[in-house]
Amino acid sequence: MTTSTQIQNSLVVLASRPQGEPTVDNFSLRSEPLAALTDGQVRVKHHFLSLDPYMRGRMNESKSYAAAQAIDEVMIGGTVGEVVESKHAAYAVGDTVVGMGGWQEYSVVDGNQRGVLRKVQTGAFSSSHYLGAVGMPGVTAWYGLVKICDPKPGETLVVSAASGAVGSAFGALAKARGCRVVGIAGGADKCAYVVNELGFDACLDYKALGDVKALSKALKDAAPNGIDGYFENVGGWILDAVLTRMNAFGRIAVCGFIAGYNGAPTPMANPALILINRLTVRGFIVSEHMEVWPDALTELAGLVASGKLKPRESIADGIASAPEAFLGLLKGKNFGKQLVKLG
Amino acid sequence: MTTSTQIQNSLVVLASRPQGEPTVDNFSLRSEPLAALTDGQVRVKHHFLSLDPYMRGRMNESKSYAAAQAIDEVMIGGTVGEVVESKHAAYAVGDTVVGMGGWQEYSVVDGNQRGVLRKVQTGAFSSSHYLGAVGMPGVTAWYGLVKICDPKPGETLVVSAASGAVGSAFGALAKARGCRVVGIAGGADKCAYVVNELGFDACLDYKALGDVKALSKALKDAAPNGIDGYFENVGGWILDAVLTRMNAFGRIAVCGFIAGYNGAPTPMANPALILINRLTVRGFIVSEHMEVWPDALTELAGLVASGKLKPRESIADGIASAPEAFLGLLKGKNFGKQLVKLG
Repeated sequence: MTTSTQIQNSLVVLASRPQGEPTVDNFSLRSEPLAALTDGQVRVKHHFLSLDPYMRGRMNESKSYAAAQAIDEVMIGGTVGEVVESKHAAYAVGDTVVGMGGWQEYSVVDGNQRGVLRKVQTGAFSSSHYLGAVGMPGVTAWYGLVKICDPKPGETLVVSAASGAVGSAFGALAKARGCRVVGIAGGADKCAYVVNELGFDACLDYKALGDVKALSKALKDAAPNGIDGYFENVGGWILDAVLTRMNAFGRIAVCGFIAGYNGAPTPMANPALILINRLTVRGFIVSEHMEVWPDALTELAGLVASGKLKPRESIADGIASAPEAFLGLLKGKNFGKQLVKLG
Repeated sequence: MTTSTQIQNSLVVLASRPQGEPTVDNFSLRSEPLAALTDGQVRVKHHFLSLDPYMRGRMNESKSYAAAQAIDEVMIGGTVGEVVESKHAAYAVGDTVVGMGGWQEYSVVDGNQRGVLRKVQTGAFSSSHYLGAVGMPGVTAWYGLVKICDPKPGETLVVSAASGAVGSAFGALAKARGCRVVGIAGGADKCAYVVNELGFDACLDYKALGDVKALSKALKDAAPNGIDGYFENVGGWILDAVLTRMNAFGRIAVCGFIAGYNGAPTPMANPALILINRLTVRGFIVSEHMEVWPDALTELAGLVASGKLKPRESIADGIASAPEAFLGLLKGKNFGKQLVKLG
């Protein structure tokens, strides 16, 4: 492909910061012509954009673990695509690359900046999995399981948002280590998928159970030996219920507090349980632990290629659908890894 | 001393379990003659009894980290005293020994049971310190500091109940490691002691500050570089305030939740901060980590002998005063390590 200044790039910018729950009005769709590349630059045409809960935090101005998303700039986001133009020797047209291309159809990357683009193999599975099970969500599950929950064979692990990209990878990784794995998910269809296709030992429908007491009771049945490790994706009352069933010296990896992103307080009802059961509760962000990525990605790619991990995907079509798909993700409407197909 | 069946032992038993806040009516004072020793037994005359917040938890029937205190049996408690009669070769009359003799003037110990009595040196400091700075409270501070807060020189550490036995030892151990140490205590006199006699860099009076917002602001001034490690003795709103000032990758050692012992819920207002600041929060009970005691006690004895740690003591007189002194401890009326002098 030659220079393509006539071709338009469609992109989504953050138009305004949400007051409470975000809406489509917080986003704006734009179109602009592709600019010519300068030396060292690489142009990527995105095949898939990843939508993830962390983006909600970036939309706020308030203190979060990462810099706020700037107003009027393209929304941050992970992408997989192919090199369509290159002025850098390390990248050739046709290479499949993973990067942080954002909510847009094309991105331009400085090929000299280390780690910004990662070349990946194709063929063993859909390249979309590099945004999910064999990407950031998969490594997130790996880190929380291996470095925080640190399970022994036979121990019982629980993960919330079990049908999602992180939860499903957590389950496969935990089963590979000889653990009993119990999922928590919203809805009978998700729970059926978690048990039947992902191979969890049990899955509890928090929407049907409805409150701390009912979920706590259900956890007692599903985890008769108690819970040794918990991977927290949601926070709020689900965490309160799990805390009632943690074994002594249990470990809790805190990866997400979805319930709190809109600013609503999500207290922990009984933190004294941390003392009573001598728990370790640790928050983490996977991008701060790049040292584990190679080992984690190798294991995850093997699980997907062998069919031991069958990640499910919710795929929205076209960049214009991204805001709606993202709002749905925050409400748990997606079923599996939420992606946007871009071309 | 010969057998002494005429001598009376005065003791305090748990008469009933408290409903909410305990009262003196939950305890009963009794007197009974000393029984003759059988082979292998050792009789200890207690000089000091230690009163500690953990005893409140034992008074409940509900799930706690330790077995409940039985009704009508002598209250559990650490003691230091001297051997007054021995039918075991390892113990001689006159030995100073530390044990769990309970709320009574004399105890009988099976000398063959390992670890029940610990012989200690006398001379360098009052034997009462073996119940405080050079005993369980001191080792508790050591474990939380060294094994959980794990500070580097120059980091800032905070401890609640700073004028108490655990807090004062924590401060001395932290200063010895080149850290900035900020205490939290209740009242101007306690805060003055913490700074002037214990050598903390600052101390905040939570009673004068009164709420989360004011304490959070005061912590910002007292810990201008943020808080790297926190030793939690109290829970509740003080923990909420400290959480607002924790640095990324901060560590919180959870040792006590005094506010919760009466059954009142003590929620954590914003547990999402564990994720946002990638904190590690770990509960522990020092009796489960006996492997650290020798190293910890050696360091603590050195600090007390050299005057670098000047533990303050509140000493009640006589076994009959124990219930009242214990209730005062739960309300923070003591000033330093709470002891009962027994003879």
